[in-house]
Amino acid sequence: MASCIDSSSPAIDPARRRALVPESLLMEGVNVRISARKGETKGPTSALAPSYLQANLIVLPSGYADDFTRFCQRNPVPCPLIAKSATVGSYNALVSWIEGVTGEELATDIDIRTDAPKYMVYKDGELVGDQINDIKTYWTDDHVAFLIGCSYSFEDALKTGGLMPRHSRQRRNVPMYKTNISLCPAGAFDRGTYIVSMRPYRKDQIERVREITRPYLATHGEPIAWGWEAVAQLGIKDINKPDWGDRSVDDEGCNLEPARGHGDELVPVFWGCGVTPQYAVMSAGLKGVVMGHAPGHMLVLDCRDDDLLRNRFERGKNWHTRHRFLNIQFDDEIACWAEPSGMIAQRTNVYSCIVNSTCVSVSNATWLKWLNVDPLSSNSFRRSNHSKAFTSL
Amino acid sequence: MASCIDSSSPAIDPARRRALVPESLLMEGVNVRISARKGETKGPTSALAPSYLQANLIVLPSGYADDFTRFCQRNPVPCPLIAKSATVGSYNALVSWIEGVTGEELATDIDIRTDAPKYMVYKDGELVGDQINDIKTYWTDDHVAFLIGCSYSFEDALKTGGLMPRHSRQRRNVPMYKTNISLCPAGAFDRGTYIVSMRPYRKDQIERVREITRPYLATHGEPIAWGWEAVAQLGIKDINKPDWGDRSVDDEGCNLEPARGHGDELVPVFWGCGVTPQYAVMSAGLKGVVMGHAPGHMLVLDCRDDDLLRNRFERGKNWHTRHRFLNIQFDDEIACWAEPSGMIAQRTNVYSCIVNSTCVSVSNATWLKWLNVDPLSSNSFRRSNHSKAFTSL
Repeated sequence: MASCIDSSSPAIDPARRRALVPESLLMEGVNVRISARKGETKGPTSALAPSYLQANLIVLPSGYADDFTRFCQRNPVPCPLIAKSATVGSYNALVSWIEGVTGEELATDIDIRTDAPKYMVYKDGELVGDQINDIKTYWTDDHVAFLIGCSYSFEDALKTGGLMPRHSRQRRNVPMYKTNISLCPAGAFDRGTYIVSMRPYRKDQIERVREITRPYLATHGEPIAWGWEAVAQLGIKDINKPDWGDRSVDDEGCNLEPARGHGDELVPVFWGCGVTPQYAVMSAGLKGVVMGHAPGHMLVLDCRDDDLLRNRFERGKNWHTRHRFLNIQFDDEIACWAEPSGMIAQRTNVYSCIVNSTCVSVSNATWLKWLNVDPLSSNSFRRSNHSKAFTSL
Repeated sequence: MASCIDSSSPAIDPARRRALVPESLLMEGVNVRISARKGETKGPTSALAPSYLQANLIVLPSGYADDFTRFCQRNPVPCPLIAKSATVGSYNALVSWIEGVTGEELATDIDIRTDAPKYMVYKDGELVGDQINDIKTYWTDDHVAFLIGCSYSFEDALKTGGLMPRHSRQRRNVPMYKTNISLCPAGAFDRGTYIVSMRPYRKDQIERVREITRPYLATHGEPIAWGWEAVAQLGIKDINKPDWGDRSVDDEGCNLEPARGHGDELVPVFWGCGVTPQYAVMSAGLKGVVMGHAPGHMLVLDCRDDDLLRNRFERGKNWHTRHRFLNIQFDDEIACWAEPSGMIAQRTNVYSCIVNSTCVSVSNATWLKWLNVDPLSSNSFRRSNHSKAFTSL
């Protein structure tokens, strides 16, 4: 069971790996996929295609697909569904579940059966394919693929924010723990508890750590618990004995331990972990052939970390996923114009736009007023007496 | 805090209430809203506008809106977000969060400030308006309204399925309990645990009860736990002492108790409960004016129970929320045609359609083939040699 879990080996040195692979592989997700498809990339994907989203892969018989979809919907923090097969049996087209990102933006030119470097295959719960190069012979017209978020993205964001996770700096694997927090069941997936990953921070850093990771809804988002009291609350018996990954140590190799009175001690901070859905799937006693990527050998996508932040907290404004937007601040109101069509949703009298990564809305009347300005020329907005600012996403 | 909780009084006899209100009020959600707006409907909404969705209302200062949205996204089972104000300050336009249902379908002609029969108002956590008729004087341009699902819908579905909840049959309130299951924090909403409602069933009924309630994702969906072992697992000390509502009793008024060896005993079944978000909001120590409906005095919508089942488990197919669909089974493939525009999303080579409440997809090539048949005439499909069945949603 644990063998199906995404826990990149601590032996992988990203810098060394980067030196060993052609520069082209470092550039884009699609290069990694094609290289894996050709059998050229066989190792873990850590450090390949930096900033491109890497996903956990779970492939199920279609009879379990609705249950698993609902399971992810009911447990979005540990089981963030990024995408699934566009149709039953489809290995080369995805439907995106990331708000504001289309399936095509997630990945075009993808073959789920070949584009991860290594796979695991289970039949009626028994391992029948271990670290194999592709799953073409196992894939059937009845299979559905699910892509689940992993936390690489917010780790990069933490690093950028000056809060690089200690395990990354030490080139160790993140510690992961089983907890006592029940998952909400959905059909066949009726058991299991949250798995959490842990990154220690000083108490005075936690608010900032929460802020940085909060927007990454598609890759676990902000922590679910923090501080020493959270250890007992989550039912973790020994913080120095993680269930997967490496224990957290300070730069002298000493264990993390409760406050020693210096005020600058590190406390554990826990996030939902992508091992959760894999563990739940393996625990569900499914019949038939279930497949996944081999640990660390992820599916690399075309979508980038920043794309995860496109979530606007708005639904029903379907057009904002289809257009590039120009955002204009206009007196105290804010407007946007969609390219290339210039069309805005017709059946509503409220329009939304995106400013500073937040979706706001203006009334129909406001739009009609703005339409008197030539909307296809952004300069006409920029030059207008009324405009204060102009940004292009 | 508990005073803000939606727990209809057990003293309300739906049959009697129904006899007291004009027949027109029993027909549509909009009638209830307009009647409440005029001050004619002042009592609880139980039994009004049968089958129309009733929603919990939470109104927050805009500074908390993103955090609360994320809080609902991270805890969708106990905190199912149905809709929110279309813009900051908007009390008469909603954005829908129910997949496949637009804001306009949820409610047109709505004034959130007046359309619930009674409201509660809190300022800096202190109750300043108790069971008041409207919130016009408290509402500001800085307020955002959130509508949260309640479990009426799946209770009707259980009744239709021959599994009427015992509390409904006995005209008692459903028992509700605090649990030890932590909510995933989001920004200011960083504390609180699941509240659950409980309906007892025989063990051999539980699978069917799960099946019936499973699709109602917007109103808590299937149970989160069941059986006597779940009582301890959820940290409930005494099943006969609920934190809100009435204890569950058999027809002789006896308490629910663990198996007495007859094999037909009832066991507790627990669902996520809409009290959870209200309790979490009241616990968050918010500054400013927070408002909600008074217990049992819900906001009644235009959307009906069955509309909740429109969730297709598909995302990124934005067009399916905007069109009425004709569904056509076509040889072994299935197609749909969107009215009124006839337009299908252009930027994808996979198209979805809805058959028997499930979203399926066909390839671009299949669509192109079908486009040779006149797509605007559904009869041309129906009469076609290739068509087997035709259904209109």
